[in-house]
Amino acid sequence: MRANAGRLVVTCDDRPGVVAAVSRFLFTQGANITESDQFSSDPEDGRFFLRMVFHLDGLAERLDGLRAAFAREVAAPLALGWRIHPASVPKRVALMVSREDHCLLDLLWRARRGELEDAAIGIVVSNHPDLAGAVASFGVPFVHVPNTRALRPQAEARHLELLAGYDLVVLARYMQILSGDFLRDVGAPVLNIHHSFLPAFAGADPYARAKQRGVKLIGATAHYATEELDAGPIIEQDVIRVTHRADVDVLTRLGSDIERTVLRRAVQWHCEDRVLRDRASTVVF
Amino acid sequence: MRANAGRLVVTCDDRPGVVAAVSRFLFTQGANITESDQFSSDPEDGRFFLRMVFHLDGLAERLDGLRAAFAREVAAPLALGWRIHPASVPKRVALMVSREDHCLLDLLWRARRGELEDAAIGIVVSNHPDLAGAVASFGVPFVHVPNTRALRPQAEARHLELLAGYDLVVLARYMQILSGDFLRDVGAPVLNIHHSFLPAFAGADPYARAKQRGVKLIGATAHYATEELDAGPIIEQDVIRVTHRADVDVLTRLGSDIERTVLRRAVQWHCEDRVLRDRASTVVF
Amino acid sequence: MRANAGRLVVTCDDRPGVVAAVSRFLFTQGANITESDQFSSDPEDGRFFLRMVFHLDGLAERLDGLRAAFAREVAAPLALGWRIHPASVPKRVALMVSREDHCLLDLLWRARRGELEDAAIGIVVSNHPDLAGAVASFGVPFVHVPNTRALRPQAEARHLELLAGYDLVVLARYMQILSGDFLRDVGAPVLNIHHSFLPAFAGADPYARAKQRGVKLIGATAHYATEELDAGPIIEQDVIRVTHRADVDVLTRLGSDIERTVLRRAVQWHCEDRVLRDRASTVVF
Amino acid sequence: MRANAGRLVVTCDDRPGVVAAVSRFLFTQGANITESDQFSSDPEDGRFFLRMVFHLDGLAERLDGLRAAFAREVAAPLALGWRIHPASVPKRVALMVSREDHCLLDLLWRARRGELEDAAIGIVVSNHPDLAGAVASFGVPFVHVPNTRALRPQAEARHLELLAGYDLVVLARYMQILSGDFLRDVGAPVLNIHHSFLPAFAGADPYARAKQRGVKLIGATAHYATEELDAGPIIEQDVIRVTHRADVDVLTRLGSDIERTVLRRAVQWHCEDRVLRDRASTVVF
Repeated sequence: MRANAGRLVVTCDDRPGVVAAVSRFLFTQGANITESDQFSSDPEDGRFFLRMVFHLDGLAERLDGLRAAFAREVAAPLALGWRIHPASVPKRVALMVSREDHCLLDLLWRARRGELEDAAIGIVVSNHPDLAGAVASFGVPFVHVPNTRALRPQAEARHLELLAGYDLVVLARYMQILSGDFLRDVGAPVLNIHHSFLPAFAGADPYARAKQRGVKLIGATAHYATEELDAGPIIEQDVIRVTHRADVDVLTRLGSDIERTVLRRAVQWHCEDRVLRDRASTVVF
Repeated sequence: MRANAGRLVVTCDDRPGVVAAVSRFLFTQGANITESDQFSSDPEDGRFFLRMVFHLDGLAERLDGLRAAFAREVAAPLALGWRIHPASVPKRVALMVSREDHCLLDLLWRARRGELEDAAIGIVVSNHPDLAGAVASFGVPFVHVPNTRALRPQAEARHLELLAGYDLVVLARYMQILSGDFLRDVGAPVLNIHHSFLPAFAGADPYARAKQRGVKLIGATAHYATEELDAGPIIEQDVIRVTHRADVDVLTRLGSDIERTVLRRAVQWHCEDRVLRDRASTVVF
Repeated sequence: MRANAGRLVVTCDDRPGVVAAVSRFLFTQGANITESDQFSSDPEDGRFFLRMVFHLDGLAERLDGLRAAFAREVAAPLALGWRIHPASVPKRVALMVSREDHCLLDLLWRARRGELEDAAIGIVVSNHPDLAGAVASFGVPFVHVPNTRALRPQAEARHLELLAGYDLVVLARYMQILSGDFLRDVGAPVLNIHHSFLPAFAGADPYARAKQRGVKLIGATAHYATEELDAGPIIEQDVIRVTHRADVDVLTRLGSDIERTVLRRAVQWHCEDRVLRDRASTVVF
Repeated sequence: MRANAGRLVVTCDDRPGVVAAVSRFLFTQGANITESDQFSSDPEDGRFFLRMVFHLDGLAERLDGLRAAFAREVAAPLALGWRIHPASVPKRVALMVSREDHCLLDLLWRARRGELEDAAIGIVVSNHPDLAGAVASFGVPFVHVPNTRALRPQAEARHLELLAGYDLVVLARYMQILSGDFLRDVGAPVLNIHHSFLPAFAGADPYARAKQRGVKLIGATAHYATEELDAGPIIEQDVIRVTHRADVDVLTRLGSDIERTVLRRAVQWHCEDRVLRDRASTVVF
């Protein structure tokens, strides 16, 4: 099934005829559309988003031709932003982590179980050596790159070397700030998990601040990292109910379950080409 | 916006080209597709379901021609089941109720607020007079039709008269059984709310049985009524957490909030042509 | 049952023996403890909170004596803050509202159904006349008190007259700011519903700001009003999942269901003496 | 803190004075009650349940004396069922598993993280050798005991040897039926996770049957195993929303997350002495 499945993603200024043009193109190529989602951010003057999954016999061999034909026949006339991605090729994913293992292990464990089939986790980079052993048992390379405010230039240079060629960088509780330069140069989206329900409690110590404020739900947020801390486009969020009895340790423990769930969904959806950026927010098909 | 919006729903045996044919048809008619959902129940030998929302200038005047053209050019060659429904025409909805007011009032109140714009509630039929006053304040006709096992034939004959011409009959906690003959003859789907998480606790007294079994969540289920009690295709379900402290009265009270929420969603989705039957279950777009 | 039920609530600095002293007192009075909750905010140097429900034959006649004995024998020696409230006497509740009816109607409707048996809603005060008719059908007095920044002094003076003698003031989407003077002088807790998941989106237009930020859940928060806007102790919160498809109108509609649910729980819990203030947050038993 | 903490659990026929007698006893012993929960299943003719957590200096040395005094002074006169458990002594827990690793690994991983401090997992018994390697990395003994309908007598004899001395047996997706004799002889509660929202889909293949019935939520249930399959007292349940798009594989994958969460909560609550059996259901404090 997956061998001949492809995903076509389109973004453009909203105008009539895009769906018809794209589906007619796929039909004339002999493809069968099996999933289709579209969204217009605003009937007047909005952006248009389209994601189609199709099956096409011999997709792998025909991919280059298909892309060229789509560019010429559909994308150029309609001024579309687009990509076609074969479902059989998983995204190359790099993980960055500090000392907390829950997000990291959940991703590695799901990959091993075959539940993250659209992601190929190729490396774990950490600013601490602590999790080397845990990662080793999954057969994924672990690289320790010390990072502090003082070491940041060297660390980021090393990161750029290590992360070259990856399609996605996931900050699975990586607790150092990444510079705007790094985010620009790394050449792949950087997806972060923040341990609060953003925009509440952006920044440091969200669980302690949640306790202080007396909230009755705590949450986690997966978002694309941008230069402004915890302000990037949100992909997924979830919450869990807490009471006055939960101290900061209990909040941290309960929250860690939400963090790993939210991060895993965001990684999976990103790798399935379901997440499209719409200015400061996202469309998730 | 709604004036020129139409909804096209298609069901057929799964085969390639349906999406392309439908979207090309709409494009050549000058329509702009604004929503699109599709589903194939099985890649081999499955059923295919499609729902598109489109905008077409002058839809009201062009509706007959559009339907004729679609039947001739697309539906007949591809052997499609289909309907085209103008979004500006709400479904005519009849409510049936016994003594419990929570589902009924929530629907009437939402209709008054303009939150059920795809439903036009035209009548309330009840086997008890109790809720006549509450209904009167919403300006909807209330008809009392006594119904018991003995009176059922007369009651159902009267129901058929009253409900003629409606597009949907909603059992908003109507506590009498309807016969298979009635369900066949009424000429519209009948949508029921059952006060349990089906298939658990089908039949009478679900909250008392939930208490006895000691479940930790109680629920409600909206489904299409079929001759077999509480066994029809499920449209929507939801649950709420309960503890050992909740007695049957508290379960009933907590459950009533879930019932009205679940029923309202099901009615709304049905009236937006989002619910398609797939044998014993439903596709909800 | 309720006729002889009483609720005893205690707050004090944490120290050993409070539970034993209180329960021994109730036992020697012939009372049977049927519910008991306690919480210590910190094992070192914390505050202690206790709520007991008890049954005592002839409670109504014995109430004054019981209070005097408790004050003398238990509260004074242990330096307790405390109150004893007979469950048969509902709290006198005043509602304030502007134009949105969903929170107001849900409270009135539940009171009529007998679901808010610990609250006696005695008045509705509004800065707009719009909801007079809807309130009239519930048999509750409706008083229109215009209020703007310019009229605030007169409005608040009138409010103080109208609200004298009430045990609780509920802002059921009252969209004018109340002054610190008013909050001090009104002589009852003021409970507000804010249409966001605080501390996110405090202040005006939370749904529009939620849309702009692209959150994937929206929420509502019930809290005690304090002079600082939307910063008072939180009683209850809840959220609902939303997608990129929901515009501000849809967010507002979905959010209104959460608002009324959250507010109703908070009002009910407050009236059952379940909510105790702990500095900037609450203990909810 | 935990060193001197104890848990006292009481069940008896409901009668006045139990709370007072128990709390006075603890106070006179010099204990400080830090948590207290009670429940009466019925004001007339019900059962009464009480759980208190207390701190008492030198608890370990004083435990025998405390128990003897409680038996003599409180339990005997009032005819109480009771136990006193020091919080510093975790329950000895045995896990049984077949081939699915998700429930097992989550429990082992949480124990390693220190999140299951009231459980000491001492052994994993499996009817398949598959998970030996995964368990080895956690330093817990793994014993393979083949089991089929034909081998059941020998298998259960071996189980009784292996499980002797354990306080709790957890069936973490153990897919063989255990006999009534085994359940009686094993000398510890047996806690099972069933992969459906009971009482719906008791027995085999619940996800396939859920798909067939077209439910919109799937769930999991942790319960005490009894001779009647999937009919024992329920401890915890939870659900997750699904759509028509989820096939049986996806249901199984989504469900496995709920299973492990529900099982972990049930194990934790049981080991904290929070779960009391009340005929066919449970009280969970």
